[in-house]
Amino acid sequence: MHFSVIFRVLGVLLMIFSLTLLPPIGFSIWYDDGHHYAFLTAFLITICTGLAIWLPVHRARHDLQTRDGFLITALFWSVLGLFGSLPFYISEELNASFTDALFESMSGLTTTGATVFTGLDFLPKSILYYRQQLQWLGGIGIIVIAVAILPMLGIGGMQLYRAETPGPVKDNKLTPRITETAKALFFMYLGLTVLCALAYRFAGMTEFDAVGHAFSTVAIGGFSTHDASIGYFNSPLIMGICTFFMFFAGINFALHFVGWRARSLRHYFTDPEFRFYAGWVLVGMVITVLYLYGTGTYGFFDSLMHGSFEFVSVLTTTGFGTADFSSWPTFLPFMLFLFAFMGGCGGSTAGGMKVMRVMLICKQGYREIKRLIHPSAIFPIKVGKKTVHNRVIEAVWSFFAVFIISVMVMFLALLATGLDFITAFSAVGACITNLGPGMGDVAAHYGNINDPAKWILCFAMLLGRLEVFTLLVLFSPMFWRR
Amino acid sequence: MHFSVIFRVLGVLLMIFSLTLLPPIGFSIWYDDGHHYAFLTAFLITICTGLAIWLPVHRARHDLQTRDGFLITALFWSVLGLFGSLPFYISEELNASFTDALFESMSGLTTTGATVFTGLDFLPKSILYYRQQLQWLGGIGIIVIAVAILPMLGIGGMQLYRAETPGPVKDNKLTPRITETAKALFFMYLGLTVLCALAYRFAGMTEFDAVGHAFSTVAIGGFSTHDASIGYFNSPLIMGICTFFMFFAGINFALHFVGWRARSLRHYFTDPEFRFYAGWVLVGMVITVLYLYGTGTYGFFDSLMHGSFEFVSVLTTTGFGTADFSSWPTFLPFMLFLFAFMGGCGGSTAGGMKVMRVMLICKQGYREIKRLIHPSAIFPIKVGKKTVHNRVIEAVWSFFAVFIISVMVMFLALLATGLDFITAFSAVGACITNLGPGMGDVAAHYGNINDPAKWILCFAMLLGRLEVFTLLVLFSPMFWRR
Ligand SMILES: [K+]
Ligand SMILES: [K+]
Repeated sequence: MHFSVIFRVLGVLLMIFSLTLLPPIGFSIWYDDGHHYAFLTAFLITICTGLAIWLPVHRARHDLQTRDGFLITALFWSVLGLFGSLPFYISEELNASFTDALFESMSGLTTTGATVFTGLDFLPKSILYYRQQLQWLGGIGIIVIAVAILPMLGIGGMQLYRAETPGPVKDNKLTPRITETAKALFFMYLGLTVLCALAYRFAGMTEFDAVGHAFSTVAIGGFSTHDASIGYFNSPLIMGICTFFMFFAGINFALHFVGWRARSLRHYFTDPEFRFYAGWVLVGMVITVLYLYGTGTYGFFDSLMHGSFEFVSVLTTTGFGTADFSSWPTFLPFMLFLFAFMGGCGGSTAGGMKVMRVMLICKQGYREIKRLIHPSAIFPIKVGKKTVHNRVIEAVWSFFAVFIISVMVMFLALLATGLDFITAFSAVGACITNLGPGMGDVAAHYGNINDPAKWILCFAMLLGRLEVFTLLVLFSPMFWRR
Repeated sequence: MHFSVIFRVLGVLLMIFSLTLLPPIGFSIWYDDGHHYAFLTAFLITICTGLAIWLPVHRARHDLQTRDGFLITALFWSVLGLFGSLPFYISEELNASFTDALFESMSGLTTTGATVFTGLDFLPKSILYYRQQLQWLGGIGIIVIAVAILPMLGIGGMQLYRAETPGPVKDNKLTPRITETAKALFFMYLGLTVLCALAYRFAGMTEFDAVGHAFSTVAIGGFSTHDASIGYFNSPLIMGICTFFMFFAGINFALHFVGWRARSLRHYFTDPEFRFYAGWVLVGMVITVLYLYGTGTYGFFDSLMHGSFEFVSVLTTTGFGTADFSSWPTFLPFMLFLFAFMGGCGGSTAGGMKVMRVMLICKQGYREIKRLIHPSAIFPIKVGKKTVHNRVIEAVWSFFAVFIISVMVMFLALLATGLDFITAFSAVGACITNLGPGMGDVAAHYGNINDPAKWILCFAMLLGRLEVFTLLVLFSPMFWRR
C-alpha cells in the first residue's frame, strides 16, 4: 500500500468536494434562510482537512497498485459521505444526531435516497438544494469520477473502474483517451440533467423544484424537496417526463455515448443488455398496471399512470413515489421490490445487481439445464454475438452469492436490533440496492428506526454502491498482507 | 425417450408401493379403528394400476438414456405422491379434499412434514402409522431407490443418481457393485431406525410412538402422531435422543458406511463436509441458546434444551417442535430458517441446499476476493485435499441461483393467492427446503391456506426434493426434442 499517494488523492478529493458546499451558500443567501453558516463551517472544515491531508504528501508519486485502487474507491464514498454530513450535523434547525446526519449524507451520495428527515416542505431551501446536489454528485461519481478524475490524479484508469465494478464491464472504451471519455460522460450527464430540468419546468415545476428533481432523477437518487415526492405535483405530464428520464438514466451511459455520436437509436436495439432491460420494463409495467386495475385499486387511467411510474421508479432503483406503493395489494410491492434487486444497466446510475448480471445468471441457469440433457456438449454463453469469458461468469456468480449472503446477514442483524420482519427485510433490500424507500416502518422515511439499524443500513448502502466486493476485499486479511 | 421402459419401471414401482399399504391394514385391524377399507381400496387401485401399466410393456428392454432417468425420477415422486394420497382421500373420517390428501401425501413422501390435518391425537392409529411410514419410505427413496432399485430394474445407476443430485456427488462408490451399495445403505438406514426406536422406547414412549417417531426422525421428516410433536412427551431425555438422531441422519450416509466398515469415528472428523456441518451446528446452537437465555425467553436449562433441539431440528430440516419457535424473539426464527436453507449433508435424508453446496459457495466467494487482490494468481478450490473441478462449481452456482429464483417466483405466486407476507415467505421456504413448519398462518399446520397455495407448495416440495434441476429440466423444450 502506498499510503502517501492515497492521502494525496484523498486530500485533493476533499478540496474539490469542499467547493460543492459553496452553491448552497448562494442559495441560502438568495432565499435568506439563514443557513449559510452551516455550509460555510462545513466548507472550512472540509477544505482545511483536505489541505492538511494533502500538503505533507503532495509531492508523493508512486505507481498505484490494484489494492490502492480498492482502498481509494472505498474511502472515496465513506470519507465524502462523512464530510458531506457536516451541514446536516451543524444545522441547528435540523437538530440532527451524528447518526442521522451521516445516514442522510450517505444516502444522498450513494444515490439511495432514503431519508431520515420529515417535513421536507418546511426545511430551509439551501438544505433542500444541498440534498439534491449530493445525489447529483453521487451520480457523477458513479459514472465518471472512478473512470476519469482519479486517473487524472495519477491513478490508472481502467483498473480503478474495475475496482468500482468487478462485474462485466463493457470493453468498448468509448474514446481512446480516458480523460476525454470522462469529459464526454460528464457532458452527457450534464446535458441529460439540463434536458430533464427544462422538461420539468415546462411541465409546471418551479425553477427550484425542476433543477432539484432533475438532479435526483438522472442520478437515480430519489430525493425530493417535498414529503409527497413526485406525487406533490399531481401531474400526469410530470409523471410521464419523470418515467422517461428514469428509464433513460438506467441505461448504460456508454450506450448513450455511442448512440449520440452516431446520431442513431439503432445501437440501443442491438444491445442485448438494453433489450433485456427494456423487455422487463415493458412486461413488469403491464403486469403492474393490469394487477392494479384488476384488483380495483384504481380506475384504468390511474392504474396506468401510477403503475407504470412506480414500476420504473422501483426497477431503476430511483425510489420516487406518487402513491404509497407499499399499501398496494401485497403481491405488487414485493414484485416491484424483487425487480429492484435486478436494477438498471451496468454503467448507469442505477443500483441493484444490474441487468447484465441478472441476464448472465439466467443464461447460465439455462445452460446448466441444457448441459444436464446433453452432458458432453459444449454450450458457450453468449451476449449478442460475443462469447462471455468463464472468468466473467464466475465473477457474476460470486457477486450474486455474496450479495444474497450479505443481504441475509444484515437482515438478521437488523432483526436483532429489534426491527420487525417487513421493516428489516425491506430496509436492507432498499439500501443495498440503493432504491431508498422500503416498507413497514421505513415506507415513508427512516427517521423512526434505532441508531444501530441506521449504521447497518449505511453499511448496506456502501456495500451496494461499491458492488459488494470493493468493500469486502478490505475485510480480508490477504488484502493487508505485504 | 423410451416410454415403454419408463412405463415398465413405473408399473413395477407402483406394485412395490402398493405392498406398503398392507401394514396399515394390519394396524387398522389390530387397533380396530375401522379404517382398513381405505387402505384396502387404495391397495387394490394401486396394484391394479401398476399391473395395467406394467403388463403391456413388461418385455420392453432398452438402454435408458439420461433423459429417461430425469423423467423416471420426477415421475417416481409425483406418481407415488399421487397414489400415496389415496388412503387420505378415501377415508370418510378425515373428509379430506383431493388437494389436502395430495398435499399430505406429497409432504410425507418428500419428508417435508408439513401437515394439513389437525387433532392428530384423535386420528385413527392406522392413518397415523401410515403418515409416519410414508416419511420413512421417502427417506429410503432419497438415499437408496435412486441409487439401487432403479438400476436393478435395468437402468444405469450412477447416471440416475446424478439425475437425483446434479450437485456434487461423493465419488467414492462405497462398494463396487451398485446393488450391494443399495443393500448396505438400506440396512444402515434400517439399523439406525431400529436403534432410534429402541432409544425412544427406553426413554418412555409407547411402542407405537417409538416406531412412528423413529421413522420420521431418521427420514428427517418431522411428522408426529401428536399435535404437540415431540413437545407432547415433555421429556429432556427424548429431546436429547431426538437431537442426536436428527444430527446423525443429517450426515452423508456414505460417510456412515465408511465409518461403520472401519469401525472408527476418524472418518467423520477428516471429512470436510462433516466438519463444516458439525461446526455450524455447534455455532448455531450456542447462538440460539444464548439468545434465548439473554432475552429472558426461558431459564438456562430450558434455553439449553429447547434452543439446541429446535436449532438441530430446523437446520437438518426435520421440523419437529417442542416449543413454538415462530413466537421466539424475531431474530431467532429467521436465523433458524436461513440455516434450513443450508440443510444437512449431501447423501443424507436432509433437505435444503446441502452443506457441501453452501461450503463450495463460500469457498468460491472467498476465492473471488483473493482473485481481485491478486488478479493473475490461480487459486484452485479444494475440498479436503482434492481440487474441485470447475464443472462441479458451475453446477453449484447454477443450483444456488435457480433455487433462489424459484423461491422468489413461488413466493410472489403465493402472495398473489392472497397469503400474507410472512406466511408466504416461510411457507415457500419450509416447503422447498423440505423443512415443514413455517411461520404466520402455517406455523402450526397448513390446513387454513387456500387450495392454489397448496398446489404451489406441493410443487415447491417436489422441486426441493428433486434438487430443482431434475424437475426444471422437464420444462425445457430441448428435453422433449428428439
Ligand atoms: K435511489
Ligand atoms: K422435514
